[in-house]
Amino acid sequence: MDLLKQKISSEGRVIGTDILKVDSFLNHQVDPDLMKAIGEEFALIFEGQGITKVLTIESSGIAPALFTGLFLHVPVVFAKKTASRNLDTETYHAAVHSFTRGSEYIVRVSKRYLTAEDTVLLIDDFLARGRALMGLLEIAEQAGARVAGAGIVIEKGFQDGGSLIRSMGIRVESLAIIKEMSEEGSKITFADETKWATHMEEEKT
Amino acid sequence: MDLLKQKISSEGRVIGTDILKVDSFLNHQVDPDLMKAIGEEFALIFEGQGITKVLTIESSGIAPALFTGLFLHVPVVFAKKTASRNLDTETYHAAVHSFTRGSEYIVRVSKRYLTAEDTVLLIDDFLARGRALMGLLEIAEQAGARVAGAGIVIEKGFQDGGSLIRSMGIRVESLAIIKEMSEEGSKITFADETKWATHMEEEKT
Repeated sequence: MDLLKQKISSEGRVIGTDILKVDSFLNHQVDPDLMKAIGEEFALIFEGQGITKVLTIESSGIAPALFTGLFLHVPVVFAKKTASRNLDTETYHAAVHSFTRGSEYIVRVSKRYLTAEDTVLLIDDFLARGRALMGLLEIAEQAGARVAGAGIVIEKGFQDGGSLIRSMGIRVESLAIIKEMSEEGSKITFADETKWATHMEEEKT
Repeated sequence: MDLLKQKISSEGRVIGTDILKVDSFLNHQVDPDLMKAIGEEFALIFEGQGITKVLTIESSGIAPALFTGLFLHVPVVFAKKTASRNLDTETYHAAVHSFTRGSEYIVRVSKRYLTAEDTVLLIDDFLARGRALMGLLEIAEQAGARVAGAGIVIEKGFQDGGSLIRSMGIRVESLAIIKEMSEEGSKITFADETKWATHMEEEKT
């Protein structure tokens, strides 16, 4: 998705070897027009799959998931990371290890909002090691819901989450896949840029 | 806003005397069409105020804030409740006491995304005791930003947050104000229903 890649190239800040900060438009400050375009793109990619729910994790997944739900005309459910007295006690839950935070957290979804009748599309802002997505898959499995696939805004192609999830037979569609990046000058190379195109095609087949 | 009040009446669940669960459309499962209508309404109410940023708190404020930003054509910033190694170290922050969670938490906004040049519209899902909104006001003050007002999806009119914030001279516009509610049958009475209309008009003047 060119609009997204341009935004990542112009505003993304690379820290160290594996942190990409895109908090000017995705996960702190949010660009509503870009989120709308992203939601429309996911809806196009996954239309006709009989999707009944979009499932994401708070907080950064909410914006892209919301517009995806808008264009697919289905509700959006966001898994919660914290227990609250306002959340139903009857929940599906899964443990997720966060490499970003250096800790483990539990994601929860009320049993009211996901059932065996559902076909879910998973949406998240990042795919790196794949732990958050694994948590959502576990929750979908507990519900007995069918998983139509996963829509990812930014995939770190140099980490193993993408291949891990795809090897489970899950369709993963990422709007921007980063092949490599470097802190110096925040240089970011995408997987489908010309110089990598052949390489990636081989990987896909 | 009639569409919202109908949704609250038909799907809201009252627990005890002060908890209103609207997690079927607002803060766990989210109805994208309703959020769009809410965002459009806030944009109409606050248009022409020179708003440059919409400011909210993760997670439940994000959906209504996102569509408000879309219709006002400005970025949305969501204050973070947890420290992450991905958040800038240079932040504005404020302590917020949560009666729902029974604890205090810190909300943070990177100094990159709010400055003295900004006119902000605060958006949140609920206004009850007003503590979350006070936190956002404190952050706006730290930034030196002008506050155009606050747009609230659901105000618990029987708690003191609304009068507290309005007494500070802040314009607060709530799309649904609950006058009273009772657990039995989840009965909810809105402030502007006919039987309360005169009463509320007096309060406003």
